[in-house]
Amino acid sequence: MDIHETTFRVRYAETDQMGVAYYANYFVWMELGRVEFCRSMGLRYRDMEEQDGVLLAVIDAQCRYRRPARYDDEVTVRTWVCASSRKTVEFSYEMYVGEERIASARTKHLFLDRDFRPVSLPVRYQPMFGVRERT
Amino acid sequence: MDIHETTFRVRYAETDQMGVAYYANYFVWMELGRVEFCRSMGLRYRDMEEQDGVLLAVIDAQCRYRRPARYDDEVTVRTWVCASSRKTVEFSYEMYVGEERIASARTKHLFLDRDFRPVSLPVRYQPMFGVRERT
Amino acid sequence: MDIHETTFRVRYAETDQMGVAYYANYFVWMELGRVEFCRSMGLRYRDMEEQDGVLLAVIDAQCRYRRPARYDDEVTVRTWVCASSRKTVEFSYEMYVGEERIASARTKHLFLDRDFRPVSLPVRYQPMFGVRERT
Amino acid sequence: MDIHETTFRVRYAETDQMGVAYYANYFVWMELGRVEFCRSMGLRYRDMEEQDGVLLAVIDAQCRYRRPARYDDEVTVRTWVCASSRKTVEFSYEMYVGEERIASARTKHLFLDRDFRPVSLPVRYQPMFGVRERT
Repeated sequence: MDIHETTFRVRYAETDQMGVAYYANYFVWMELGRVEFCRSMGLRYRDMEEQDGVLLAVIDAQCRYRRPARYDDEVTVRTWVCASSRKTVEFSYEMYVGEERIASARTKHLFLDRDFRPVSLPVRYQPMFGVRERT
Repeated sequence: MDIHETTFRVRYAETDQMGVAYYANYFVWMELGRVEFCRSMGLRYRDMEEQDGVLLAVIDAQCRYRRPARYDDEVTVRTWVCASSRKTVEFSYEMYVGEERIASARTKHLFLDRDFRPVSLPVRYQPMFGVRERT
Repeated sequence: MDIHETTFRVRYAETDQMGVAYYANYFVWMELGRVEFCRSMGLRYRDMEEQDGVLLAVIDAQCRYRRPARYDDEVTVRTWVCASSRKTVEFSYEMYVGEERIASARTKHLFLDRDFRPVSLPVRYQPMFGVRERT
Repeated sequence: MDIHETTFRVRYAETDQMGVAYYANYFVWMELGRVEFCRSMGLRYRDMEEQDGVLLAVIDAQCRYRRPARYDDEVTVRTWVCASSRKTVEFSYEMYVGEERIASARTKHLFLDRDFRPVSLPVRYQPMFGVRERT
């Protein structure tokens, strides 16, 4: 199982008046994790959209918040594929500030064409998302 | 059970290049639902923070996406308390564009003081969040 | 000169750890002002994009901040066209919380087609943006 | 004159349905430029807020947009102080994708204390912002 790590700092724009990162931003951070996971697998998500017309639409997303993240904290997102088929893929995420786990999350996605109809993931992308060949 | 409805339009800023509302924004919309739910119960969330020093920190959030929402769509969020105690409260949300349900969601919150320590919800707020008295 | 007013509340998501609305969000609020200005003139901006393929691209934007806006404040944006031609339009904005002016701003836009090439504003839209006929 | 460069990728969340980065996000990118400019001068902006109670409040901001930025583009922000006094500081920014300049911008800031009253920048921070000593 491939796990990818990407690190960034909490932006001032991402804080709220509680003095911590606003909860919706964790879902943006998951996007960063997914994109960099794909890039580490040799897949530029932008190309998949532009060249193949395959979109990765979110159908379910969940985050469990354990500790707040603060402005300028370095957050590391660990991202991996926890389930996949030719129609869907599911990512898991663990987020850390230093050694401390601040959140655990997952997202489930449907592969769509440009008209938002479900499609099978093109064969050449299947290994990157861990899709097993049928025998 | 009190259900509150609040309606707003999808902002251009909330769309992404897929041409639909970006998925993290649904969590902002839930915030709008919660705040207006509280207001309808006679509670201004801002006062609870400023005057009582009670924060409503998210510890878990989930959204199931059924249909995309598009720019300028009128979205209605129906919000209600689905579980509560003196320490935590859980909200459920259904989001609609017209008659069509576009998403179902829930968030779980912990009551915290200004130092981010768990506190019991002040008694006078308990009825608004559906907290039952112990007998 | 037509001036349109639109009112909304500052969202929690829009605050930052300074306890006030983050400065970039004022530009989102200007978008709300523009869109509702257009709607008041009988123009749904979404239709102009979808049906006519005319985009309103920002080429210059400025905001002068006078007073902070706080969470849950009701902000009123007054929007009007301060200059226009068949190629460009310029909007002015004044933002208020109650009687107090919190910001003054302006944005300049270029009309583009779907390929991002400058176009002349279709004649039927010209009156809404105050474009005078040539004599 | 010190110029600092910081580079990041355009996030999917930052795009809009026009297929390019939404214009308000450039102001978030300026924040990244400022923060990293300060860090390069040995100043962690977070410390200035937390330890000295000095806030850098925006009073004016402007951006001229020259070319759109697209999803996953690597944007470089060049940031420098173009004017400063003990009461205010003004930053200039140039943003690039590759060799192409996509935007020019500036922001003006007032130093405030925690109660939002104007203060003089503490002497030890003055050199970082290019404040000259009076003779």
